[in-house]
Amino acid sequence: MSTRKMPIPQHISQEAQEFLAPAVTTTENDPAPQSTEEWLAFVKASNASYAPFVEAITDSTEVTIEKTSIAGVTVRIITPKTLPDNKQDKILVNLHGGGYVMLGGDQSIMEAVGIALAGQFKVISVDYRMPPLHPFPAAVDDGLAVYQSLLKEYGAENIALFGASAGGGLSAAVTLKARDQGLPMPACLALNTPWSDLNKIGDSYFSNHGVDPTLSSYEGWLGHMAAIYAGEAGFDHPLVSPVYADYSPGFPPCILISGTRDLLLSCTVRLHRALREANIDAELHVFEAMWHGFMTMPEGQQANLETIHFFEKHFKL
Amino acid sequence: MSTRKMPIPQHISQEAQEFLAPAVTTTENDPAPQSTEEWLAFVKASNASYAPFVEAITDSTEVTIEKTSIAGVTVRIITPKTLPDNKQDKILVNLHGGGYVMLGGDQSIMEAVGIALAGQFKVISVDYRMPPLHPFPAAVDDGLAVYQSLLKEYGAENIALFGASAGGGLSAAVTLKARDQGLPMPACLALNTPWSDLNKIGDSYFSNHGVDPTLSSYEGWLGHMAAIYAGEAGFDHPLVSPVYADYSPGFPPCILISGTRDLLLSCTVRLHRALREANIDAELHVFEAMWHGFMTMPEGQQANLETIHFFEKHFKL
Repeated sequence: MSTRKMPIPQHISQEAQEFLAPAVTTTENDPAPQSTEEWLAFVKASNASYAPFVEAITDSTEVTIEKTSIAGVTVRIITPKTLPDNKQDKILVNLHGGGYVMLGGDQSIMEAVGIALAGQFKVISVDYRMPPLHPFPAAVDDGLAVYQSLLKEYGAENIALFGASAGGGLSAAVTLKARDQGLPMPACLALNTPWSDLNKIGDSYFSNHGVDPTLSSYEGWLGHMAAIYAGEAGFDHPLVSPVYADYSPGFPPCILISGTRDLLLSCTVRLHRALREANIDAELHVFEAMWHGFMTMPEGQQANLETIHFFEKHFKL
Repeated sequence: MSTRKMPIPQHISQEAQEFLAPAVTTTENDPAPQSTEEWLAFVKASNASYAPFVEAITDSTEVTIEKTSIAGVTVRIITPKTLPDNKQDKILVNLHGGGYVMLGGDQSIMEAVGIALAGQFKVISVDYRMPPLHPFPAAVDDGLAVYQSLLKEYGAENIALFGASAGGGLSAAVTLKARDQGLPMPACLALNTPWSDLNKIGDSYFSNHGVDPTLSSYEGWLGHMAAIYAGEAGFDHPLVSPVYADYSPGFPPCILISGTRDLLLSCTVRLHRALREANIDAELHVFEAMWHGFMTMPEGQQANLETIHFFEKHFKL
């Protein structure tokens, strides 16, 4: 498939211009791991590449990170050095990204620490079970078990879920399953570039192929991760691809964030429409020339501010 | 420039699938009119192509259309057959699209009638002056003159402005100029795929080149219309390209609508960000696989419902 050369805008941050400068290389021709052992080796190598960054965060004096378990699920509790009085009784639950396969273990804290620091919130990062050992619905079950346990401790109105990419889809899926079990709904959800359709359906899977510098194609790893996650449930299951879920009034307010170069732009706007057509309070933010998970850029700080503002509004702070 | 073949999604309406089926032809190699006479002939031919559609609307018993003038500006007042009691004192002002050059005269009513019928609102469609005879700021001055006159009759809180494409940019520009003159602000603005940057800046000018079936390229007519509209003011003037304007609290709430195949997707999301970064209440809706001005599709009805809902909310109906 051809890739399109997009000019780098001069009005975006210097950091973003530099990030976009190198040619995008797609993974479409990279052989995906085949066996369980190959997948585990793939994940191990991925985690190793993030280790220095994670160690720097862990050593920071700005947050404390406590590894523990809730309802049998491994979690890490991230507490910012300063936790304002009006946020002591609030809890954010993060379901990390990584294509339902990567970024577990110590690496699972990255998004959670970003939001904990930006918003001065306490965050529980869920180290949910993943393929190749644990396909769907293990991740949903783990997220739900943590949510259910927190309900007793905090109350639904003091809980918000958030996640990026696979973690965005998973945040929606956990909430849908909680609803279907009759549990009270959290205050709100923040879905950052949510992987709402594991099928290759959506304009941006095509338009941003070879354009998105971090998630450059569906071919290669992404489609293979979809397959080992969904397993027998298939891509059309509403808890696998929550764009196909039945939303109805009572589902919590959502914020959705993407960028014009995001491979999952269509996943994001399609989920926003699904929510709006069910009359759910859902706000959309699309950042010009930004890609899948641009949170370390100055534009990402703007996106995080929108998310924090949204949490504070729905927590009535 | 290469064009990208995008698959037609099966999840959009049948009407939209049929609209997208023919290959997109760009106007990039079409010679643009050069002289005043050539532009006037171009506009005349464009208007003639819409005439049967406009005549059908004019003959409809669902609306009455009265041509008159307000503050010296030609307008058409569109009144739906049923005007609910709680909307009698509300007025919508439409600034039509057409690249600041086309769709004036009898053709200017098309968007206004759509919203008048969908929302049962009375709409004043402004037939503002345009190039080649009247470049910027004539259009802004005409819109402002009508708004100023309506202020006395209705009060700012009962007025909303809306427009698509050039009319979206113009709605923002008129409001900015009103603000700078110290006039009270309207209740809200609806900006449908607003032409917020007349420069060729923005990812979607590239990504949707040859993809958008109705506005296929900046080259050809669009860039030339930008030039004859802006004239000496240039494309960076904040009332020509309102993405460059200074927004600040007090600017009215806005709804912005676009689609993933819209040549002006980036114009839309950039203006949304400009508003949000000034802390203006601004909501964004992006429709999957939809193009510039998809309002006649079933998805366009969904978009119009969002707009109507937004008007009713900000009119406190």
